Amino acid sequence: MWEILILLILSALAYKITDGLIPNLKDLFVKAGLYGVDLCKTNKDKIPEAIGVVSGCVFLVTSFLYIPIVFGNGLMDRQHFPHNEFAELLAGLLSICCMLLLGFADDVLDLRWRYKLLLPTVASLPLLVVYYVNFNSTTFVVPIQLRYWLGVSVNIGFLYYIYMGMLAVFCTNAINILAGINGLEVGQSVIIALSIIVFDIIELRGDQFKAHIFALYILIPYVATTLALLKHNWYPSKVFVGDTFCYVSGMTFAVVAILSHFSKTVLLFFLPQIINFLYSVPQLFHIIPCPRHRLPKYSAETDLLTASRTIIAKKDFTFLTKFILQVLTILRLVDKIEDKESVTINNMTVINLFLIKLGPQSEAQLTKKLLCFQVFCTCIAFVIRYPLASYFYDKLE
Amino acid sequence: MWEILILLILSALAYKITDGLIPNLKDLFVKAGLYGVDLCKTNKDKIPEAIGVVSGCVFLVTSFLYIPIVFGNGLMDRQHFPHNEFAELLAGLLSICCMLLLGFADDVLDLRWRYKLLLPTVASLPLLVVYYVNFNSTTFVVPIQLRYWLGVSVNIGFLYYIYMGMLAVFCTNAINILAGINGLEVGQSVIIALSIIVFDIIELRGDQFKAHIFALYILIPYVATTLALLKHNWYPSKVFVGDTFCYVSGMTFAVVAILSHFSKTVLLFFLPQIINFLYSVPQLFHIIPCPRHRLPKYSAETDLLTASRTIIAKKDFTFLTKFILQVLTILRLVDKIEDKESVTINNMTVINLFLIKLGPQSEAQLTKKLLCFQVFCTCIAFVIRYPLASYFYDKLE
Repeated sequence: MWEILILLILSALAYKITDGLIPNLKDLFVKAGLYGVDLCKTNKDKIPEAIGVVSGCVFLVTSFLYIPIVFGNGLMDRQHFPHNEFAELLAGLLSICCMLLLGFADDVLDLRWRYKLLLPTVASLPLLVVYYVNFNSTTFVVPIQLRYWLGVSVNIGFLYYIYMGMLAVFCTNAINILAGINGLEVGQSVIIALSIIVFDIIELRGDQFKAHIFALYILIPYVATTLALLKHNWYPSKVFVGDTFCYVSGMTFAVVAILSHFSKTVLLFFLPQIINFLYSVPQLFHIIPCPRHRLPKYSAETDLLTASRTIIAKKDFTFLTKFILQVLTILRLVDKIEDKESVTINNMTVINLFLIKLGPQSEAQLTKKLLCFQVFCTCIAFVIRYPLASYFYDKLE
Repeated sequence: MWEILILLILSALAYKITDGLIPNLKDLFVKAGLYGVDLCKTNKDKIPEAIGVVSGCVFLVTSFLYIPIVFGNGLMDRQHFPHNEFAELLAGLLSICCMLLLGFADDVLDLRWRYKLLLPTVASLPLLVVYYVNFNSTTFVVPIQLRYWLGVSVNIGFLYYIYMGMLAVFCTNAINILAGINGLEVGQSVIIALSIIVFDIIELRGDQFKAHIFALYILIPYVATTLALLKHNWYPSKVFVGDTFCYVSGMTFAVVAILSHFSKTVLLFFLPQIINFLYSVPQLFHIIPCPRHRLPKYSAETDLLTASRTIIAKKDFTFLTKFILQVLTILRLVDKIEDKESVTINNMTVINLFLIKLGPQSEAQLTKKLLCFQVFCTCIAFVIRYPLASYFYDKLE
């Protein structure tokens, strides 16, 4: 356990360093043209963008420095050095480093959409290879109720690798689309990371404790550097985190999920992101018109945010548009204003949904409520994972 | 050997892809403010900078895709999978990926000098750790003539790691300071890489063949992507490669040198860079005034380059300045113009030395001559490595 103690000390240092570096490097980013203007504020200051690369780099370097400590025991006894675990850690860091590079390149160069889906796939390659080499277990355990038809477990073979590749793409993009107000991306990432850490600590007594210690090695420095970033990104933001941050966070969660074999549990902690994704699907696939930004609308007079809206011309109605609108209206998930020629609804993100349900509010309040929702979902996730899972499975896996 | 064949096919594809991507992505770089103006040309077009990140990314992705093929044999027999070799390759790629990220960040953000020395050290950490774990051989074999005093080999312990860290810093910066005219950075890197490849092929029959195959795995895709870059960077340059390229190249050579255990031989192939570095020392350490750029001077009328110069005021003369000037004059290594109050000499780089020895010439000619010099030095390196080394060592190591 002394390794974890050293990791905590190193991570505290990493927090301090990130916290000190961000204000120091801010001007370099603005000078390089990496800045944006906060659309939900009255002042139009240049706010540095892509600062996630700073916390990401410190996170990586901390992990590098930690490698000799983790494997210190192994080094005493060179014959039995756990080369496979070492390779796992390296592959995980390689995937994260790759994502950091590609995310930063995306922030600087503003790559096209198709690259955003391609890049995480490419970056997850080392991870999938090490999974193939070290485990290559591609079976899903079947819930008791279905075993009569499917057997105890189903080997999905190559599809499992597709699933893991998709997981990386999902994790990186899911955080990226539940974003846009100060502190939300970073806040939700911290909560997800802390949720996984709690889960790891609970499971440390189990027979999979090695996998859970591995997850802690990666997540503790991640949380430390991300907290420092949150301090500067919290309302009112002095820095923006950029796609870099969302990519790195998503890949970090994917690495932990894949190499520690609890991808289903990690997905449970993504409940708000999954809800947001499903809710966004009609707009993402352009069944309902999707403006370039779906951020809430800011009113300078009241300093409050209200839901932003999209207009659907009635002449463009297809059967599918009608059907979706009907379902959403029945479920009370849209705020609809209809006139003779068109229907106006809120943009379909969880952020806008909160605004139509809870009324206009300040940015800071909205972020806090969304983060509370994230914590609430974590509680639900634990209920699903523990009491409920035993109904579907004999032994927790 | 079929693995090498697949590698050649993959590398040919990587060449094609890099060659196609560079013109496609050029405008994105200019739009992001990543461009420069060629100081040795009359037209003042915006030329995209830091394009080395494109070839670097394709190089990395090619290596990722190649991993399952290299370790294909190992996977058939999972019990004897060479986890240590796998970890080596991952650590090497991690160091290169890290350098790519830091180099690109440097190009975008224009970091300060101290970072330029720090970054390669940080990026070489994974490499040093894997060296520690897999080999931890920190002995130098002593030349026959000195064995009477030192014994057959000397274990320098921790110093060996300092040496390896310095090697990464040297390789990255050595290429960076022998640069400034179209195609020179990329050209010299290709020649160094090809020299190491020839050396590897010669040594494939030896007992260290595994290490040499490892070097080929890394160098072949490197050469392929770099050749595509050279095509666009050759006189007249349509793209600039940026510090990104120098960093990635330097780290690639350091990775090969360290993990394949022939760092001394790799250093032999850096002869022109070492000469350039030693010649630059008086200016780098500001014993002789050093202007911000030491590029040759371009004359728009003649379209020729001449050596650029620096002025030393006589009142600033120290003993050291006088001594160095004296030595350089005796060795005929400077072109000195003296008047009552000051001495004017050429900036001390190999590029300017060529210009004072061979007279003013066009940029394309100068690059070609410098590259011929690099090839000539490779020949000398082989003479030192083979006939001469047997005079100092019983068995080549």
